[in-house]
Amino acid sequence: MTLNNLLSQSSEWLRGTGADSQIVISSRIRLARNLSDFSFPQWADKKERKEALSLMRGVLFKIKYLKNGLFAELDGLDVLDKQFLLERHLISREQTRGRNCKAVVISEKEIISVMLNEEDHLRIQVLQSGFNLSDAWRLINELDEQLEQKLNYAFSPQWGYLTACPTNVGTGLRASLMLHLPALVMSKQIGNILQTLSKLGIVARGLYGEGTEASGNFFQFSNQLTLGRSEEDIIDNLERVVRQIVNYEEERRKLLLKQKREILYNQIWRAYGVLKNSYFINSGETMNLLSMVRLGADLSILKDVELRKVNELFLLTQPAHLQKIEGKKLNAYQRDVKRAELIRERLK
Amino acid sequence: MTLNNLLSQSSEWLRGTGADSQIVISSRIRLARNLSDFSFPQWADKKERKEALSLMRGVLFKIKYLKNGLFAELDGLDVLDKQFLLERHLISREQTRGRNCKAVVISEKEIISVMLNEEDHLRIQVLQSGFNLSDAWRLINELDEQLEQKLNYAFSPQWGYLTACPTNVGTGLRASLMLHLPALVMSKQIGNILQTLSKLGIVARGLYGEGTEASGNFFQFSNQLTLGRSEEDIIDNLERVVRQIVNYEEERRKLLLKQKREILYNQIWRAYGVLKNSYFINSGETMNLLSMVRLGADLSILKDVELRKVNELFLLTQPAHLQKIEGKKLNAYQRDVKRAELIRERLK
Repeated sequence: MTLNNLLSQSSEWLRGTGADSQIVISSRIRLARNLSDFSFPQWADKKERKEALSLMRGVLFKIKYLKNGLFAELDGLDVLDKQFLLERHLISREQTRGRNCKAVVISEKEIISVMLNEEDHLRIQVLQSGFNLSDAWRLINELDEQLEQKLNYAFSPQWGYLTACPTNVGTGLRASLMLHLPALVMSKQIGNILQTLSKLGIVARGLYGEGTEASGNFFQFSNQLTLGRSEEDIIDNLERVVRQIVNYEEERRKLLLKQKREILYNQIWRAYGVLKNSYFINSGETMNLLSMVRLGADLSILKDVELRKVNELFLLTQPAHLQKIEGKKLNAYQRDVKRAELIRERLK
Repeated sequence: MTLNNLLSQSSEWLRGTGADSQIVISSRIRLARNLSDFSFPQWADKKERKEALSLMRGVLFKIKYLKNGLFAELDGLDVLDKQFLLERHLISREQTRGRNCKAVVISEKEIISVMLNEEDHLRIQVLQSGFNLSDAWRLINELDEQLEQKLNYAFSPQWGYLTACPTNVGTGLRASLMLHLPALVMSKQIGNILQTLSKLGIVARGLYGEGTEASGNFFQFSNQLTLGRSEEDIIDNLERVVRQIVNYEEERRKLLLKQKREILYNQIWRAYGVLKNSYFINSGETMNLLSMVRLGADLSILKDVELRKVNELFLLTQPAHLQKIEGKKLNAYQRDVKRAELIRERLK
């Protein structure tokens, strides 16, 4: 498997299947783990990082889920490929920086990805389409146990798993759910919801994690604390809060359909009309219009639109994806032209 | 013929035929005339206005062009019908105001309209599609001569035709050309052109005359002075200046096609996409989007669009037209919904 194989398949997080997938795009759990016999990557020298990488790589490819996976050293990738992986949520922004024996292992269907020598030695991630933290947890827990048998994890009986950043100590677990909340945004309810979240131990972020703004009405919700509670408790709390947000979004969608029908139809159909007829469109506008089209498909207002195609477009219209499809570097102007062309073709 | 008959026919000024009709929508000449045996309408009492009206009506319906025309007293029309005539450029805003024995006579194809008891006793207007002031002049001159044989015009050998407002004294003639100048607007050249016009004795106005803003990239150009020059000179000067503006617009269209192809296609196709998919649209946005669609049809970018349908929409989407079509009063919200519905149907 090579990087270019990924281009022809849909990313797990946009497959649009699974429970509550009209609102919950994807469920994700990641575990931060470190090797006790090596310094944390940031404090290790090159030799040590290289040794750790070699050890982890060997172990990972013995795990059945990863046997046919993809291994890529970040140092060997160009800027475009790094951004491509970032856009697919397979690596973090942190992982694209510097030349530090960083690598990533990606399972066949992109459900599992493991970053090596990121902030921590191992950042194991499992993605599931829809509202499905339980399957994600089952799988990542199984993986973690298999790895623990072969790797000597840095673990303290008092603190739990040790990590480079104290905010990850303990379980090393971050569970997150990506939600599509157009109705809460349109009805200006989202602000109130985001404000009360921190009291519930939940953090909200944009589509591309920390420091990114909500784009296309996508919001990522995840647990704030990793310490002092069990993995199951952390996941359970996130699930309960997000279940509530899903209900709010559903109610708002019904209310919009009932009370603001013309305005809703207007926004959705116009978005569809613009996307099908653009010859020039930037990434931000694309996300927002696709969001409306997705809502239209969810509500059966746009009956002929294939949800799968819309979901794919969220990803394929990202800058690096466009350039990978085109097979060459494109400047911003060229991307805006190419993006519009791709959308017109796919929505024809 | 009744007012409602007009609804089913295209207004002459938007027929989209004639010379240079890609840029010059219509040519219009009006003559201001008064009766010497009656006070000007504003200074006459009701009885006098009534007598003048009766006299003029009798004479007008003996003219062959007006025999099968429509006669409507403004006092007998409701607000909607008045606005309807205004939207069709058949009466002035002035003519819709007050209850003063005002009337209008409209020829079958709306080429001729004569306002009675407006600011002046007679305001004779001839409209021609495209760049065609010569036919408009020939026709209005013929009409004027026929009327002069039967009516005693207020005329001074020194000043020429006398009018209520001194700016019309002399020839009483106002010639105007309605132009569609999207390329000059898009390339921000229109400002310079408008600035130099007054030096050339030309006045620029928006779609609905004095005090209205340019909407849908439509501009009306007309002569500033009516005194001290012959009718032919006035018309000739306007024609020469406007010919120049037509050339500029043509050059700019070619330049846009050559240098800003994607941006041009983008604006035109998006406008088309939005119009075909709106469920709510106000009058201003409609004009601007229709303007882009018209440009697209003119440049053969939108090959399937019938120019006739687009031209009709400029008129049918106006507030009073929408309400006449619907057969009842509509508030602003209802109009925006109805307008979108009408556009979707007609562009399907």
